[in-house]
Amino acid sequence: MKQRSQFLTRGLKMAGIFMFLALFSTVFAQEAATVAEEAPKYASYDDFTASSGFALFTVNNLWLLVSAALVFLMHLGFATLETGLTQSKNTVNILFKNMFIVCIGILGYAFYGFNAMYPGDFNGWFAAGSWFSVDNEDVTMVTDLYNNYTWWTDFIFQAMFAATAATIVSGAVAERVKLSSFMIYATLLVTFIYPMTGSWQWGGGWLSSLALGGTVDGEPIGFYDFAGSTLVHAFGGFAALAAVIVLGPRLGKYANGKVRPILGHSMPLAMIGVMLLWLGWYGFNGGSVLSADPRGVSYVFVTTTLAAAAGCIGAIVVSWVLLKKPDLSMGLNGILAGLVGITAGADSVGMGASIIIGLIAGALVVLSVLFFDKIKIDDPVGAISVHGICGIWGTLAVGIFADGKSFTNQLVGALAVSATAFVASFILFTVIKAIMGVRVSAEEETEGLDIGEHGNEAYPDFTPAHK
Amino acid sequence: MKQRSQFLTRGLKMAGIFMFLALFSTVFAQEAATVAEEAPKYASYDDFTASSGFALFTVNNLWLLVSAALVFLMHLGFATLETGLTQSKNTVNILFKNMFIVCIGILGYAFYGFNAMYPGDFNGWFAAGSWFSVDNEDVTMVTDLYNNYTWWTDFIFQAMFAATAATIVSGAVAERVKLSSFMIYATLLVTFIYPMTGSWQWGGGWLSSLALGGTVDGEPIGFYDFAGSTLVHAFGGFAALAAVIVLGPRLGKYANGKVRPILGHSMPLAMIGVMLLWLGWYGFNGGSVLSADPRGVSYVFVTTTLAAAAGCIGAIVVSWVLLKKPDLSMGLNGILAGLVGITAGADSVGMGASIIIGLIAGALVVLSVLFFDKIKIDDPVGAISVHGICGIWGTLAVGIFADGKSFTNQLVGALAVSATAFVASFILFTVIKAIMGVRVSAEEETEGLDIGEHGNEAYPDFTPAHK
Amino acid sequence: MKQRSQFLTRGLKMAGIFMFLALFSTVFAQEAATVAEEAPKYASYDDFTASSGFALFTVNNLWLLVSAALVFLMHLGFATLETGLTQSKNTVNILFKNMFIVCIGILGYAFYGFNAMYPGDFNGWFAAGSWFSVDNEDVTMVTDLYNNYTWWTDFIFQAMFAATAATIVSGAVAERVKLSSFMIYATLLVTFIYPMTGSWQWGGGWLSSLALGGTVDGEPIGFYDFAGSTLVHAFGGFAALAAVIVLGPRLGKYANGKVRPILGHSMPLAMIGVMLLWLGWYGFNGGSVLSADPRGVSYVFVTTTLAAAAGCIGAIVVSWVLLKKPDLSMGLNGILAGLVGITAGADSVGMGASIIIGLIAGALVVLSVLFFDKIKIDDPVGAISVHGICGIWGTLAVGIFADGKSFTNQLVGALAVSATAFVASFILFTVIKAIMGVRVSAEEETEGLDIGEHGNEAYPDFTPAHK
Repeated sequence: MKQRSQFLTRGLKMAGIFMFLALFSTVFAQEAATVAEEAPKYASYDDFTASSGFALFTVNNLWLLVSAALVFLMHLGFATLETGLTQSKNTVNILFKNMFIVCIGILGYAFYGFNAMYPGDFNGWFAAGSWFSVDNEDVTMVTDLYNNYTWWTDFIFQAMFAATAATIVSGAVAERVKLSSFMIYATLLVTFIYPMTGSWQWGGGWLSSLALGGTVDGEPIGFYDFAGSTLVHAFGGFAALAAVIVLGPRLGKYANGKVRPILGHSMPLAMIGVMLLWLGWYGFNGGSVLSADPRGVSYVFVTTTLAAAAGCIGAIVVSWVLLKKPDLSMGLNGILAGLVGITAGADSVGMGASIIIGLIAGALVVLSVLFFDKIKIDDPVGAISVHGICGIWGTLAVGIFADGKSFTNQLVGALAVSATAFVASFILFTVIKAIMGVRVSAEEETEGLDIGEHGNEAYPDFTPAHK
Repeated sequence: MKQRSQFLTRGLKMAGIFMFLALFSTVFAQEAATVAEEAPKYASYDDFTASSGFALFTVNNLWLLVSAALVFLMHLGFATLETGLTQSKNTVNILFKNMFIVCIGILGYAFYGFNAMYPGDFNGWFAAGSWFSVDNEDVTMVTDLYNNYTWWTDFIFQAMFAATAATIVSGAVAERVKLSSFMIYATLLVTFIYPMTGSWQWGGGWLSSLALGGTVDGEPIGFYDFAGSTLVHAFGGFAALAAVIVLGPRLGKYANGKVRPILGHSMPLAMIGVMLLWLGWYGFNGGSVLSADPRGVSYVFVTTTLAAAAGCIGAIVVSWVLLKKPDLSMGLNGILAGLVGITAGADSVGMGASIIIGLIAGALVVLSVLFFDKIKIDDPVGAISVHGICGIWGTLAVGIFADGKSFTNQLVGALAVSATAFVASFILFTVIKAIMGVRVSAEEETEGLDIGEHGNEAYPDFTPAHK
Repeated sequence: MKQRSQFLTRGLKMAGIFMFLALFSTVFAQEAATVAEEAPKYASYDDFTASSGFALFTVNNLWLLVSAALVFLMHLGFATLETGLTQSKNTVNILFKNMFIVCIGILGYAFYGFNAMYPGDFNGWFAAGSWFSVDNEDVTMVTDLYNNYTWWTDFIFQAMFAATAATIVSGAVAERVKLSSFMIYATLLVTFIYPMTGSWQWGGGWLSSLALGGTVDGEPIGFYDFAGSTLVHAFGGFAALAAVIVLGPRLGKYANGKVRPILGHSMPLAMIGVMLLWLGWYGFNGGSVLSADPRGVSYVFVTTTLAAAAGCIGAIVVSWVLLKKPDLSMGLNGILAGLVGITAGADSVGMGASIIIGLIAGALVVLSVLFFDKIKIDDPVGAISVHGICGIWGTLAVGIFADGKSFTNQLVGALAVSATAFVASFILFTVIKAIMGVRVSAEEETEGLDIGEHGNEAYPDFTPAHK
């Protein structure tokens, strides 16, 4: 009972912090309202539907909506993957976290993140905004800003992206993080921190006009991150790294100087997760073309697919050599590594290069997983390696394989976002730790978080064989 | 052996009843043939493909086909959700029921339902028709009736909807219903009763021109149900309520005046189910725009998403307060509640309203689940609460939040369809009960329906850990 | 350790054979380069995007990309279906095989298969090519060859198809095949043999202009296989039959002249698999229209759906009569049988015929599964019956139900491809058997391939109920 009333207290605290930040954000709200100021190209929606460009607009818009649905499905992919790779006594907890993140992520993005990330008027470093300050009636027509899809499509596609970052962290801190603390952490990370670094590039901020790597025709080359190897994946991966450092490893994982493997409970769930993530990536990368342009989208489909396949083969070969066995979970992580790796340059590297990027990402993820275990960073699902390390690799690969990009810029951008994610996550999680703790008790960890946090189990009436 | 030959007898009985009703329906078949009478706008299909409107028609048609595929996927969502929330000894039975329903639902809709629900000439209350009486060669061109998609697209999209209603019932009667009886019940419900109430609104029947709530410019305001909060979900939910009343609770559920929880066997399956249902809802609601209109579809995507997310948060908060713990299954039901709630008004309520509708639906579903348990209505998966109660809530919400709609009409429509579904389901199930019984024996219920009805188990060779 | 170093040796052998064949294929590479020679219709991509046909091209292209994603999802469907229908001790092995096949299949198709199957200049019987010899810059514009989609779309859609053939075999040889041997076998089958028989029809080879069945207006009627009942499914099914004959049945399956059922370990996984396969079939058949043509795609959706539903009902009825119980796995196989059966004629048989084709396929698959068990062909998932037998049935059905097709041609084509797949698979698997063996030891088979081949288990930390 005492335990339970603590949940309530935590819930109220969480609501309080959220309210405060929401209030804070409205101060800057007028900035975002400029979105609506742009003059629409057509006098009315009927005029627009009768125009010759309407069919093309419709198919472009449709593809982004389908892409949003595919990116949504990635959240089921993350949920099943993380569940499969962890113990059955923590399954309810992991599913709950993933369910919560996608829901609060979408609402947080509506209340604050969307207009903070894509402001109409940007100061170059920070942005703040509020979705509800936009007069939605004014944003329905084609404008220079919304040339291929509607304002609503823009919101829903970006909202599905946003929650991904926090979900990445959820896998790394699994099996010992306190639920209420993580709920607060995830809410704040996805609502306030992800849009900030995101705005640096996709909101027209300082990274998008980075001149460090040189200029072309007087224009700075800028940082390049097609669909978010850095802005989504490295962001999530390095936020996860910080959280894991604050949190510490699971009990018994590094006992007596040895690495004790804590195995997962369902490889079919892990397989379902990775295949759904791969499927969702066609929306993640394919939708980032921001239209249904045939050349653009089909090219991105090819590079994304080749990198995923090559990532798998790379991870199989390296893990077979190093671990002396064909490891399924390494192959699965290799697929994700290849996908994360190609995300920054899916539209701009060659097809041969996409295979090389995938192969290296697949090899890298195996080495990275082994490395982090060696330095006692306990990441149950390999999220830091897959998203953090391969996210940076993919970003740098654009500087290596794509024309007209700057390796220096890619390095600066990847490090700036990763470091910011790490520091912000570290501060945020440390503050939450000081206020209410971030880790369950040793007893609860041993018994399982399902009973400790939820009073439920994942498989209560499961009786496999009656024979 | 005796047991088994009974199955055969039941099968033959089932076939007999079905044949009779199919025969019956052909009497009215000429009515439906009027579909084909409308003059096509183009002399030939080649003329049509060469016309300037063909690209837009193609994308509109494509979106409805993709939507049909998404709604199809909802049947997998229902199957995994229901399986996850019930005991492992009844898993084969539940999967079989769901597999059967989608198949017989599609065939029944082809043989009878489609043209009964969307007749060319409607008498206002009842309709009957036969798909096979339509000369399909004549329905290929654009007509006033088929302006954005083909006749085949119309059929396939609506057929996927139809089976949903019976599937809703399947979850509520799980773990004690006799397979053969339910197969007959579901076949008749989806083939003959669902199209009748459906035609009242979507077939141009009396609800669509309801004048009770007033008129605008001399035209009756009519009932409004965008994608089926009432016509699909409340229909299914109240059909389920009647079936559960006839059937009675599972053994031991309400022993000695106490509610004994009978837990499910796989929360990952339940999570997969809800997330697939959410995904499928983008087709369910998004496809109900009946075109790929960019403003329409993207707006529906936004309201649908916000309501689902808010439903989850609403259910989490209310269940946390009432049950003193963060309950995963309540959160999952909250998502579905939000989705059911927004279905009636996804295109016509504001974005803020969609969040409120979702929050209330999420709260409502928790209270409703607890309420039905209190009055000893045993619904293993909460189908009556999710689809019945939240379906009515969503329908009423249109009267509250949308412009130009009538609360009175919404109330009348919701009650008329729900009451009809309840009464028809009650009569149908009572008749089947009298003829052949609707419930398995107490022994079979205790042993599990998998062995009793199928002679099979769901996990025969499952040996989790060999260590 | 000895065991493990053998894996490495096998891996190197595999790499060696692959390299040799890749080298071999480059000799013929110049042949394929003719793809790029065709003159594009537009001076530049910008000219093309500004043309009036661009919107229609965009939606056609988009549909094929979405279809490719749906066909990709079929690989998850196969993985979960095969996993569900086999024992839990072989789960990691099956998942690994399926993960590997889709990845190596895509890469092999890129390195060799694609241009071998769709050569610019075809000699009528055999073809060889290399993807990397095509100058990809030249294939971006609309040409006579690429009228509705881009070269990249063509590649990705066909690549997803290609891996399917090898995956079909994987289910039939499950639970006793040596991993490394199967990896080599699958790689060679999908890279070199599938494109050869595929080119006979879809590459413009001898089957496409078969004159045996007569001519119309001086043109040969040719063989007809809309989406691959023969070229994909019968190919895979008969390749599987040969592999199973070489491999022999699982231990204890046919002991003392009796058939001992070896049951699967998760019917929910099997259900997930079949429903995802059904969903994916909308891309498999729907995408084979090779455009988003409204009449074409929507008609194919209807026939595909009706055949799947009828296949389920057919299998339920026949298995209920023969086995005296409603069998879930037979119903699921009936769905797949209906889908395989309609694949050859989804665009050209009538809607009533699609129901008949499905019903017969559903009946046939039950009889065929029982038959193969009787003659001691051990196929754990029924792949030979579903894909082989129903693939041939579907191909013949086109000759029966479609206008203007020749039954003789259908018979010749189905037999030619099936026999070639059988013989090639038999030779390939026999050669691999002679070099390195194709079967695990009896000890490993009893212990399970997960531990034997991978040193891992599928459910190591799975503890269902703690109560």
